[in-house]
Amino acid sequence: MKSRPDAGKCEHHSHPAVVQPHKPALLKRLNRIEGQVRGVAKMVEEDRYCVDILTQIAAIQSALDALAMQLLESHTKGCVRSAIKSGNGEAAVDELMTLVKRFAR
Amino acid sequence: MKSRPDAGKCEHHSHPAVVQPHKPALLKRLNRIEGQVRGVAKMVEEDRYCVDILTQIAAIQSALDALAMQLLESHTKGCVRSAIKSGNGEAAVDELMTLVKRFAR
Amino acid sequence: MKSRPDAGKCEHHSHPAVVQPHKPALLKRLNRIEGQVRGVAKMVEEDRYCVDILTQIAAIQSALDALAMQLLESHTKGCVRSAIKSGNGEAAVDELMTLVKRFAR
Amino acid sequence: MKSRPDAGKCEHHSHPAVVQPHKPALLKRLNRIEGQVRGVAKMVEEDRYCVDILTQIAAIQSALDALAMQLLESHTKGCVRSAIKSGNGEAAVDELMTLVKRFAR
Repeated sequence: MKSRPDAGKCEHHSHPAVVQPHKPALLKRLNRIEGQVRGVAKMVEEDRYCVDILTQIAAIQSALDALAMQLLESHTKGCVRSAIKSGNGEAAVDELMTLVKRFAR
Repeated sequence: MKSRPDAGKCEHHSHPAVVQPHKPALLKRLNRIEGQVRGVAKMVEEDRYCVDILTQIAAIQSALDALAMQLLESHTKGCVRSAIKSGNGEAAVDELMTLVKRFAR
Repeated sequence: MKSRPDAGKCEHHSHPAVVQPHKPALLKRLNRIEGQVRGVAKMVEEDRYCVDILTQIAAIQSALDALAMQLLESHTKGCVRSAIKSGNGEAAVDELMTLVKRFAR
Repeated sequence: MKSRPDAGKCEHHSHPAVVQPHKPALLKRLNRIEGQVRGVAKMVEEDRYCVDILTQIAAIQSALDALAMQLLESHTKGCVRSAIKSGNGEAAVDELMTLVKRFAR
Protein backbone atom coordinates (compact mmCIF):
# COMPACT_ATOMS: atom_id res chain seq x y z
CA MET A 1 0.00 0.00 0.00
CA LYS A 2 2.43 2.65 -1.18
CA SER A 3 1.42 6.28 -1.18
CA ARG A 4 2.15 8.79 -3.89
CA PRO A 5 2.30 12.56 -4.00
CA ASP A 6 -0.42 12.63 -6.66
CA ALA A 7 -2.94 10.68 -4.57
CA GLY A 8 -6.46 10.91 -5.99
CA LYS A 9 -5.30 12.31 -9.32
CA CYS A 10 -5.34 10.36 -12.54
CA GLU A 11 -3.37 10.54 -15.78
CA HIS A 12 -5.22 9.76 -18.95
CA HIS A 13 -3.45 7.00 -20.73
CA SER A 14 -5.42 4.03 -21.88
CA HIS A 15 -5.25 2.60 -18.34
CA PRO A 16 -4.23 5.42 -16.02
CA ALA A 17 -2.99 4.67 -12.52
CA VAL A 18 -5.29 6.10 -9.87
CA VAL A 19 -4.39 6.15 -6.19
CA GLN A 20 -7.81 6.00 -4.57
CA PRO A 21 -8.42 8.59 -1.87
CA HIS A 22 -8.80 6.91 1.55
CA LYS A 23 -7.18 3.78 0.13
CA PRO A 24 -6.63 1.98 3.48
CA ALA A 25 -10.27 2.55 4.49
CA LEU A 26 -11.40 1.29 1.08
CA LEU A 27 -9.30 -1.86 1.42
CA LYS A 28 -10.71 -2.44 4.88
CA ARG A 29 -14.26 -2.26 3.54
CA LEU A 30 -13.45 -4.66 0.71
CA ASN A 31 -11.91 -7.00 3.26
CA ARG A 32 -15.10 -6.91 5.30
CA ILE A 33 -17.21 -7.63 2.19
CA GLU A 34 -14.95 -10.59 1.33
CA GLY A 35 -15.61 -11.88 4.86
CA GLN A 36 -19.35 -11.45 4.39
CA VAL A 37 -19.27 -13.53 1.19
CA ARG A 38 -17.30 -16.23 3.02
CA GLY A 39 -19.94 -16.03 5.75
CA VAL A 40 -22.71 -16.73 3.24
CA ALA A 41 -20.83 -19.79 1.97
CA LYS A 42 -20.57 -21.01 5.56
CA MET A 43 -24.32 -20.51 6.04
CA VAL A 44 -25.03 -22.59 2.93
CA GLU A 45 -22.66 -25.33 4.15
CA GLU A 46 -24.39 -25.37 7.55
CA ASP A 47 -27.86 -25.67 5.92
CA ARG A 48 -29.00 -22.37 7.35
CA TYR A 49 -32.48 -21.05 6.57
CA CYS A 50 -32.81 -19.48 3.06
CA VAL A 51 -34.30 -16.27 4.42
CA ASP A 52 -31.30 -15.68 6.68
CA ILE A 53 -28.93 -16.36 3.78
CA LEU A 54 -30.84 -14.01 1.47
CA THR A 55 -30.85 -11.29 4.14
CA GLN A 56 -27.06 -11.56 4.30
CA ILE A 57 -26.76 -11.37 0.51
CA ALA A 58 -28.90 -8.21 0.54
CA ALA A 59 -26.51 -6.72 3.13
CA ILE A 60 -23.54 -7.49 0.86
CA GLN A 61 -25.33 -5.85 -2.06
CA SER A 62 -25.90 -2.70 0.02
CA ALA A 63 -22.24 -2.60 1.05
CA LEU A 64 -21.15 -2.96 -2.60
CA ASP A 65 -23.65 -0.30 -3.72
CA ALA A 66 -22.24 2.18 -1.19
CA LEU A 67 -18.68 1.34 -2.22
CA ALA A 68 -19.49 1.75 -5.92
CA MET A 69 -21.16 5.13 -5.33
CA GLN A 70 -18.11 6.34 -3.40
CA LEU A 71 -15.73 5.24 -6.17
CA LEU A 72 -18.00 6.74 -8.83
CA GLU A 73 -18.06 10.04 -6.97
CA SER A 74 -14.31 10.26 -6.55
CA HIS A 75 -13.87 9.20 -10.20
CA THR A 76 -16.20 11.98 -11.34
CA LYS A 77 -14.64 14.62 -9.11
CA GLY A 78 -11.12 13.52 -9.98
CA CYS A 79 -10.59 11.91 -13.38
CA VAL A 80 -13.67 13.17 -15.24
CA ARG A 81 -13.27 16.74 -14.07
CA SER A 82 -9.57 16.92 -14.89
CA ALA A 83 -10.20 15.34 -18.30
CA ILE A 84 -12.81 17.98 -19.10
CA LYS A 85 -10.52 20.78 -17.93
CA SER A 86 -7.69 19.55 -20.14
CA GLY A 87 -9.96 19.29 -23.17
CA ASN A 88 -10.36 15.47 -23.14
CA GLY A 89 -13.84 15.56 -21.67
CA GLU A 90 -15.68 13.88 -24.52
CA ALA A 91 -14.25 10.40 -23.93
CA ALA A 92 -14.30 10.75 -20.12
CA VAL A 93 -17.99 11.71 -20.08
CA ASP A 94 -18.89 8.88 -22.49
CA GLU A 95 -17.07 6.44 -20.23
CA LEU A 96 -18.80 7.89 -17.14
CA MET A 97 -22.26 7.48 -18.68
CA THR A 98 -21.52 3.86 -19.58
CA LEU A 99 -20.63 3.28 -15.93
CA VAL A 100 -23.68 5.11 -14.59
CA LYS A 101 -25.95 3.00 -16.79
CA ARG A 102 -24.36 -0.17 -15.39
CA PHE A 103 -25.28 0.92 -11.86
CA ALA A 104 -28.67 2.39 -12.69
CA ARG A 105 -31.61 0.16 -12.01
CA MET B 1 -21.00 -30.71 3.27
CA LYS B 2 -23.19 -33.54 4.53
CA SER B 3 -26.23 -34.58 2.51
CA ARG B 4 -29.67 -35.40 3.87
CA PRO B 5 -32.58 -37.42 2.57
CA ASP B 6 -34.82 -34.33 2.80
CA ALA B 7 -32.58 -32.16 0.61
CA GLY B 8 -34.35 -29.02 -0.59
CA LYS B 9 -37.11 -29.36 1.97
CA CYS B 10 -37.48 -27.15 5.01
CA GLU B 11 -39.04 -27.57 8.39
CA HIS B 12 -40.73 -24.58 9.89
CA HIS B 13 -39.21 -23.92 13.25
CA SER B 14 -38.01 -20.44 13.99
CA HIS B 15 -34.79 -21.16 12.10
CA PRO B 16 -35.39 -24.24 10.01
CA ALA B 17 -32.46 -26.11 8.50
CA VAL B 18 -32.56 -26.06 4.69
CA VAL B 19 -30.26 -28.14 2.55
CA GLN B 20 -29.99 -26.02 -0.59
CA PRO B 21 -30.57 -27.88 -3.84
CA HIS B 22 -27.37 -27.99 -5.92
CA LYS B 23 -25.39 -27.16 -2.80
CA PRO B 24 -21.90 -27.90 -4.22
CA ALA B 25 -22.58 -25.72 -7.30
CA LEU B 26 -23.84 -22.95 -5.03
CA LEU B 27 -20.71 -23.09 -2.88
CA LYS B 28 -18.57 -22.99 -6.02
CA ARG B 29 -20.32 -19.82 -7.18
CA LEU B 30 -19.90 -18.19 -3.77
CA ASN B 31 -16.23 -19.14 -3.84
CA ARG B 32 -15.85 -17.47 -7.21
CA ILE B 33 -17.59 -14.30 -5.94
CA GLU B 34 -15.27 -14.24 -2.93
CA GLY B 35 -12.34 -14.38 -5.35
CA GLN B 36 -13.82 -11.51 -7.39
CA VAL B 37 -14.06 -9.34 -4.24
CA ARG B 38 -10.43 -10.18 -3.42
CA GLY B 39 -9.58 -9.24 -7.01
CA VAL B 40 -11.15 -5.80 -6.57
CA ALA B 41 -9.07 -5.24 -3.40
CA LYS B 42 -5.98 -6.16 -5.40
CA MET B 43 -6.96 -3.66 -8.13
CA VAL B 44 -7.30 -0.91 -5.51
CA GLU B 45 -3.94 -1.81 -4.00
CA GLU B 46 -2.30 -1.69 -7.44
CA ASP B 47 -3.81 1.76 -8.17
CA ARG B 48 -5.80 0.45 -11.11
CA TYR B 49 -8.07 2.77 -13.05
CA CYS B 50 -11.42 3.53 -11.28
CA VAL B 51 -13.47 2.57 -14.32
CA ASP B 52 -11.92 -0.90 -14.43
CA ILE B 53 -12.54 -1.33 -10.70
CA LEU B 54 -16.16 -0.20 -11.02
CA THR B 55 -16.72 -2.54 -13.96
CA GLN B 56 -15.54 -5.42 -11.77
CA ILE B 57 -17.84 -4.36 -8.91
CA ALA B 58 -20.78 -4.29 -11.36
CA ALA B 59 -19.88 -7.86 -12.39
CA ILE B 60 -19.92 -8.97 -8.73
CA GLN B 61 -23.32 -7.32 -8.25
CA SER B 62 -24.69 -9.24 -11.26
CA ALA B 63 -23.33 -12.52 -9.91
CA LEU B 64 -24.92 -11.84 -6.50
CA ASP B 65 -28.22 -10.83 -8.13
CA ALA B 66 -28.35 -14.10 -10.04
CA LEU B 67 -27.48 -16.09 -6.93
CA ALA B 68 -30.14 -14.28 -4.87
CA MET B 69 -32.81 -14.91 -7.51
CA GLN B 70 -31.93 -18.63 -7.58
CA LEU B 71 -32.14 -18.89 -3.78
CA LEU B 72 -35.38 -16.88 -3.73
CA GLU B 73 -36.88 -19.19 -6.32
CA SER B 74 -35.95 -22.38 -4.51
CA HIS B 75 -37.15 -20.83 -1.24
CA THR B 76 -40.52 -20.00 -2.81
CA LYS B 77 -40.90 -23.38 -4.49
CA GLY B 78 -39.75 -25.23 -1.38
CA CYS B 79 -40.37 -23.56 1.97
CA VAL B 80 -43.15 -21.14 1.05
CA ARG B 81 -45.15 -23.69 -0.86
CA SER B 82 -44.90 -26.33 1.82
CA ALA B 83 -45.82 -23.77 4.51
CA ILE B 84 -48.94 -22.80 2.59
CA LYS B 85 -49.90 -26.43 2.05
CA SER B 86 -49.58 -27.20 5.75
CA GLY B 87 -51.66 -24.18 6.71
CA ASN B 88 -48.76 -21.95 7.86
CA GLY B 89 -48.79 -19.84 4.73
CA GLU B 90 -49.56 -16.47 6.34
CA ALA B 91 -46.15 -16.05 8.02
CA ALA B 92 -44.24 -17.60 5.10
CA VAL B 93 -45.81 -15.23 2.58
CA ASP B 94 -45.19 -12.19 4.83
CA GLU B 95 -41.57 -13.22 5.13
CA LEU B 96 -41.30 -13.75 1.37
CA MET B 97 -42.67 -10.29 0.62
CA THR B 98 -40.19 -8.68 3.03
CA LEU B 99 -37.41 -10.44 1.12
CA VAL B 100 -38.76 -9.50 -2.30
CA LYS B 101 -38.92 -5.83 -1.25
CA ARG B 102 -35.28 -5.97 -0.20
CA PHE B 103 -34.27 -7.15 -3.65
CA ALA B 104 -36.68 -4.94 -5.57
CA ARG B 105 -35.20 -1.80 -6.98
CA MET C 1 -65.96 0.79 -10.55
CA LYS C 2 -68.33 -2.04 -9.76
CA SER C 3 -67.84 -4.08 -6.61
CA ARG C 4 -68.15 -7.80 -6.31
CA PRO C 5 -68.76 -10.16 -3.43
CA ASP C 6 -65.47 -11.95 -4.17
CA ALA C 7 -63.33 -8.83 -3.93
CA GLY C 8 -59.62 -9.61 -3.64
CA LYS C 9 -60.08 -13.19 -4.71
CA CYS C 10 -59.03 -14.57 -8.04
CA GLU C 11 -60.20 -17.43 -10.18
CA HIS C 12 -57.59 -19.32 -12.13
CA HIS C 13 -58.54 -19.27 -15.73
CA SER C 14 -55.96 -18.20 -18.26
CA HIS C 15 -56.77 -14.56 -17.46
CA PRO C 16 -58.64 -14.54 -14.17
CA ALA C 17 -60.59 -11.45 -13.11
CA VAL C 18 -59.19 -9.93 -9.94
CA VAL C 19 -60.93 -7.17 -8.05
CA GLN C 20 -58.01 -5.39 -6.43
CA PRO C 21 -58.37 -4.73 -2.71
CA HIS C 22 -58.62 -0.97 -2.01
CA LYS C 23 -59.48 -0.43 -5.66
CA PRO C 24 -60.59 3.24 -5.34
CA ALA C 25 -57.38 4.16 -3.45
CA LEU C 26 -55.33 2.34 -6.10
CA LEU C 27 -57.06 4.23 -8.91
CA LYS C 28 -56.44 7.51 -7.10
CA ARG C 29 -52.73 6.75 -6.86
CA LEU C 30 -52.55 5.85 -10.54
CA ASN C 31 -54.35 9.08 -11.34
CA ARG C 32 -51.78 11.02 -9.36
CA ILE C 33 -48.91 9.25 -11.17
CA GLU C 34 -50.53 10.07 -14.53
CA GLY C 35 -50.60 13.72 -13.43
CA GLN C 36 -46.93 13.55 -12.46
CA VAL C 37 -46.00 12.24 -15.92
CA ARG C 38 -48.00 15.07 -17.50
CA GLY C 39 -46.14 17.46 -15.19
CA VAL C 40 -42.79 16.19 -16.47
CA ALA C 41 -43.93 16.79 -20.07
CA LYS C 42 -44.88 20.36 -19.08
CA MET C 43 -41.44 20.86 -17.53
CA VAL C 44 -39.76 19.73 -20.76
CA GLU C 45 -42.00 22.05 -22.80
CA GLU C 46 -41.13 24.98 -20.52
CA ASP C 47 -37.38 24.29 -20.86
CA ARG C 48 -37.00 23.59 -17.16
CA TYR C 49 -33.63 22.61 -15.74
CA CYS C 50 -32.68 18.94 -16.39
CA VAL C 51 -31.94 18.25 -12.73
CA ASP C 52 -35.44 19.33 -11.69
CA ILE C 53 -36.96 17.14 -14.42
CA LEU C 54 -34.85 14.14 -13.40
CA THR C 55 -35.78 14.63 -9.75
CA GLN C 56 -39.45 14.47 -10.76
CA ILE C 57 -38.88 11.31 -12.83
CA ALA C 58 -37.19 9.71 -9.79
CA ALA C 59 -40.29 10.57 -7.72
CA ILE C 60 -42.54 8.88 -10.31
CA GLN C 61 -40.31 5.80 -10.23
CA SER C 62 -40.62 5.63 -6.44
CA ALA C 63 -44.41 5.95 -6.64
CA LEU C 64 -44.56 3.15 -9.24
CA ASP C 65 -42.20 0.96 -7.17
CA ALA C 66 -44.45 1.32 -4.12
CA LEU C 67 -47.55 0.57 -6.20
CA ALA C 68 -45.93 -2.50 -7.76
CA MET C 69 -44.86 -3.86 -4.37
CA GLN C 70 -48.42 -3.41 -3.04
CA LEU C 71 -49.90 -5.24 -6.03
CA LEU C 72 -47.27 -7.96 -5.81
CA GLU C 73 -48.04 -8.46 -2.15
CA SER C 74 -51.80 -8.71 -2.62
CA HIS C 75 -51.21 -11.02 -5.61
CA THR C 76 -49.02 -13.30 -3.49
CA LYS C 77 -51.38 -13.30 -0.52
CA GLY C 78 -54.42 -13.75 -2.73
CA CYS C 79 -53.93 -15.55 -6.03
CA VAL C 80 -50.68 -17.40 -5.34
CA ARG C 81 -51.79 -18.67 -1.96
CA SER C 82 -55.17 -19.86 -3.16
CA ALA C 83 -53.56 -21.55 -6.17
CA ILE C 84 -51.17 -23.44 -3.90
CA LYS C 85 -54.00 -24.48 -1.59
CA SER C 86 -56.04 -25.82 -4.47
CA GLY C 87 -53.10 -27.78 -5.84
CA ASN C 88 -52.27 -25.45 -8.74
CA GLY C 89 -49.29 -23.91 -7.02
CA GLU C 90 -46.62 -24.94 -9.51
CA ALA C 91 -47.73 -22.56 -12.28
CA ALA C 92 -48.62 -19.75 -9.85
CA VAL C 93 -45.20 -19.86 -8.20
CA ASP C 94 -43.42 -19.95 -11.57
CA GLU C 95 -45.41 -16.93 -12.66
CA LEU C 96 -44.65 -15.13 -9.38
CA MET C 97 -40.90 -15.69 -9.73
CA THR C 98 -40.97 -14.33 -13.29
CA LEU C 99 -42.63 -11.18 -11.91
CA VAL C 100 -40.23 -10.85 -8.99
CA LYS C 101 -37.26 -11.07 -11.37
CA ARG C 102 -38.73 -8.25 -13.45
CA PHE C 103 -38.82 -5.99 -10.40
CA ALA C 104 -35.54 -7.15 -8.91
CA ARG C 105 -32.62 -4.93 -9.59
CA MET D 1 -42.80 24.27 -28.13
CA LYS D 2 -40.63 27.25 -29.13
CA SER D 3 -37.11 26.63 -30.40
CA ARG D 4 -34.03 28.63 -29.47
CA PRO D 5 -30.67 29.11 -31.09
CA ASP D 6 -28.94 27.76 -27.96
CA ALA D 7 -30.87 24.47 -27.92
CA GLY D 8 -29.23 21.90 -25.67
CA LYS D 9 -27.13 24.48 -23.84
CA CYS D 10 -27.75 25.63 -20.31
CA GLU D 11 -26.98 28.78 -18.39
CA HIS D 12 -26.08 28.39 -14.75
CA HIS D 13 -28.45 30.45 -12.71
CA SER D 14 -30.16 28.81 -9.78
CA HIS D 15 -32.73 27.32 -12.18
CA PRO D 16 -31.26 27.57 -15.66
CA ALA D 17 -33.48 27.15 -18.71
CA VAL D 18 -32.49 24.12 -20.74
CA VAL D 19 -33.95 23.39 -24.15
CA GLN D 20 -33.73 19.61 -24.30
CA PRO D 21 -32.17 18.20 -27.44
CA HIS D 22 -34.76 16.23 -29.46
CA LYS D 23 -37.50 17.96 -27.51
CA PRO D 24 -40.44 16.86 -29.75
CA ALA D 25 -39.32 13.21 -29.59
CA LEU D 26 -38.96 13.49 -25.81
CA LEU D 27 -42.48 14.90 -25.45
CA LYS D 28 -43.82 12.11 -27.64
CA ARG D 29 -42.23 9.50 -25.36
CA LEU D 30 -43.65 11.17 -22.25
CA ASN D 31 -47.05 11.25 -23.92
CA ARG D 32 -46.81 7.52 -24.58
CA ILE D 33 -45.83 6.85 -20.95
CA GLU D 34 -48.79 8.93 -19.75
CA GLY D 35 -51.03 6.73 -21.92
CA GLN D 36 -49.46 3.59 -20.43
CA VAL D 37 -50.25 4.80 -16.90
CA ARG D 38 -53.84 5.52 -17.97
CA GLY D 39 -53.91 2.01 -19.44
CA VAL D 40 -52.92 0.50 -16.09
CA ALA D 41 -55.74 2.42 -14.37
CA LYS D 42 -58.13 1.02 -16.95
CA MET D 43 -56.85 -2.51 -16.27
CA VAL D 44 -57.45 -2.05 -12.54
CA GLU D 45 -60.97 -0.73 -13.21
CA GLU D 46 -61.72 -3.72 -15.43
CA ASP D 47 -60.51 -6.19 -12.75
CA ARG D 48 -57.74 -7.47 -14.96
CA TYR D 49 -55.36 -10.13 -13.67
CA CYS D 50 -52.64 -8.77 -11.29
CA VAL D 51 -49.84 -10.37 -13.27
CA ASP D 52 -50.89 -8.57 -16.44
CA ILE D 53 -51.12 -5.28 -14.54
CA LEU D 54 -47.71 -5.77 -12.96
CA THR D 55 -46.18 -6.64 -16.33
CA GLN D 56 -47.49 -3.33 -17.66
CA ILE D 57 -46.09 -1.42 -14.68
CA ALA D 58 -42.68 -3.04 -15.31
CA ALA D 59 -42.88 -1.83 -18.92
CA ILE D 60 -43.58 1.74 -17.73
CA GLN D 61 -40.60 1.53 -15.37
CA SER D 62 -38.35 0.46 -18.23
CA ALA D 63 -39.58 3.33 -20.40
CA LEU D 64 -38.93 5.82 -17.56
CA ASP D 65 -35.48 4.32 -16.90
CA ALA D 66 -34.50 4.77 -20.55
CA LEU D 67 -35.84 8.35 -20.56
CA ALA D 68 -33.98 9.21 -17.35
CA MET D 69 -30.71 7.80 -18.70
CA GLN D 70 -31.09 9.87 -21.89
CA LEU D 71 -31.76 13.06 -19.91
CA LEU D 72 -28.89 12.29 -17.54
CA GLU D 73 -26.55 11.79 -20.47
CA SER D 74 -27.49 15.04 -22.21
CA HIS D 75 -27.30 16.84 -18.85
CA THR D 76 -23.78 15.52 -18.27
CA LYS D 77 -22.59 16.25 -21.80
CA GLY D 78 -24.24 19.69 -21.80
CA CYS D 79 -24.64 21.41 -18.46
CA VAL D 80 -22.03 19.55 -16.39
CA ARG D 81 -19.34 19.81 -19.01
CA SER D 82 -19.89 23.51 -19.66
CA ALA D 83 -19.96 24.23 -15.91
CA ILE D 84 -16.61 22.48 -15.46
CA LYS D 85 -15.11 24.36 -18.42
CA SER D 86 -16.21 27.71 -17.02
CA GLY D 87 -14.80 26.90 -13.59
CA ASN D 88 -18.13 26.11 -11.85
CA GLY D 89 -17.63 22.39 -11.94
CA GLU D 90 -17.65 21.73 -8.21
CA ALA D 91 -21.38 22.40 -7.72
CA ALA D 92 -22.36 20.79 -11.04
CA VAL D 93 -20.53 17.56 -10.22
CA ASP D 94 -22.00 17.45 -6.69
CA GLU D 95 -25.47 17.88 -8.18
CA LEU D 96 -24.76 15.17 -10.79
CA MET D 97 -23.68 12.67 -8.15
CA THR D 98 -26.82 13.33 -6.09
CA LEU D 99 -28.85 12.53 -9.21
CA VAL D 100 -26.85 9.42 -10.08
CA LYS D 101 -27.38 8.07 -6.54
CA ARG D 102 -31.13 8.57 -6.93
CA PHE D 103 -31.14 6.39 -10.02
CA ALA D 104 -28.61 3.86 -8.80
CA ARG D 105 -30.06 0.67 -7.41
